[in-house]
Amino acid sequence: MAESALADLVEALRRLPGVGPKSAQRMAYHLLQHDRSGARQLALALLQGAARVRHCTRCHGFTEAEVCATCLDPARDAGQLCVVETPADQAALERSGSYHGLYFVLMGRLSPLDGVGVHDIGVVPLLERAGDGVVREVILATGFSAEGEATAHALAQLLRERGLAVTRLARGVPVGSELEYVDLGTLAHALVDRR
Amino acid sequence: MAESALADLVEALRRLPGVGPKSAQRMAYHLLQHDRSGARQLALALLQGAARVRHCTRCHGFTEAEVCATCLDPARDAGQLCVVETPADQAALERSGSYHGLYFVLMGRLSPLDGVGVHDIGVVPLLERAGDGVVREVILATGFSAEGEATAHALAQLLRERGLAVTRLARGVPVGSELEYVDLGTLAHALVDRR
Repeated sequence: MAESALADLVEALRRLPGVGPKSAQRMAYHLLQHDRSGARQLALALLQGAARVRHCTRCHGFTEAEVCATCLDPARDAGQLCVVETPADQAALERSGSYHGLYFVLMGRLSPLDGVGVHDIGVVPLLERAGDGVVREVILATGFSAEGEATAHALAQLLRERGLAVTRLARGVPVGSELEYVDLGTLAHALVDRR
Repeated sequence: MAESALADLVEALRRLPGVGPKSAQRMAYHLLQHDRSGARQLALALLQGAARVRHCTRCHGFTEAEVCATCLDPARDAGQLCVVETPADQAALERSGSYHGLYFVLMGRLSPLDGVGVHDIGVVPLLERAGDGVVREVILATGFSAEGEATAHALAQLLRERGLAVTRLARGVPVGSELEYVDLGTLAHALVDRR
């Protein structure tokens, strides 16, 4: 079984997040046995992606141009800037259909235990971006995990120091929940923030 | 978010077995954000694998040569031929360290519901291989699922018709099990096959 091309492929597949040795082996066997055209197509997509995708100079999200389509959209409210951790979070907010401002993608969040500090995420570009004189309100939409909350807290301080209005997504009871199954922390927040 | 290189990459990653839209997105973001060298390395490994890996002409397993290293190993007993469904099964038997004969890899198993019949798996090459005059015993090591058992049953008939000795891996209680937790079918087999 010491065939180098096969072993190299299994090893390379293991670099994908969430793929262990068994899954990598299964993927390699599947591609080689049933889907060589898929393997070639994936290879091409990887090379194209690595060569062409870069960060939007305004929002830091992924794009192939200098500035992404969202940042260039004149129909969007340039006075609102929503700060998210990842492009996936941005996509989720877009799907909600209720936000029409612009975005800033941190591409990470504070995680002191992993050595990710305030300068490892895009804080300096965010402060520059938010200080363009057009942005009136910065909406912090980092996650509600411990790291996401810490990130929002740190950013809120830095942004308020620069005289910007800072808001945070509301905490509360998710749509469709039965109260008896909602965790206590969420219920407490929903009570405090009642309207 | 309609960037074509990124969308193409997510789409291509979805062709990997066990990868849905969310995982594919996560993989793409991870590679582009944190591991572009990994993306290029994976692309290269995919191209190399698709170009260089082929089937051993004797055992049908994956190899880069005409005949794989296992089939060429003179220390192995050419009188025993173990039939497995996949290279992963072969690797598992090798790790057990208790088999020293040769292998034949079916690269599949009967699955009538999916339209996989006896000629879609490597039956004809197996019959040729097993009828080389050197093989004394064919050990059927297909899985113990319904499809694996059906495959073993069909192969046993065809091989016995050609006058070959055919055996099947033993069914019984797994090492380390408590009897009370072993399923009834396994217990019944272990009783019948007691020694």
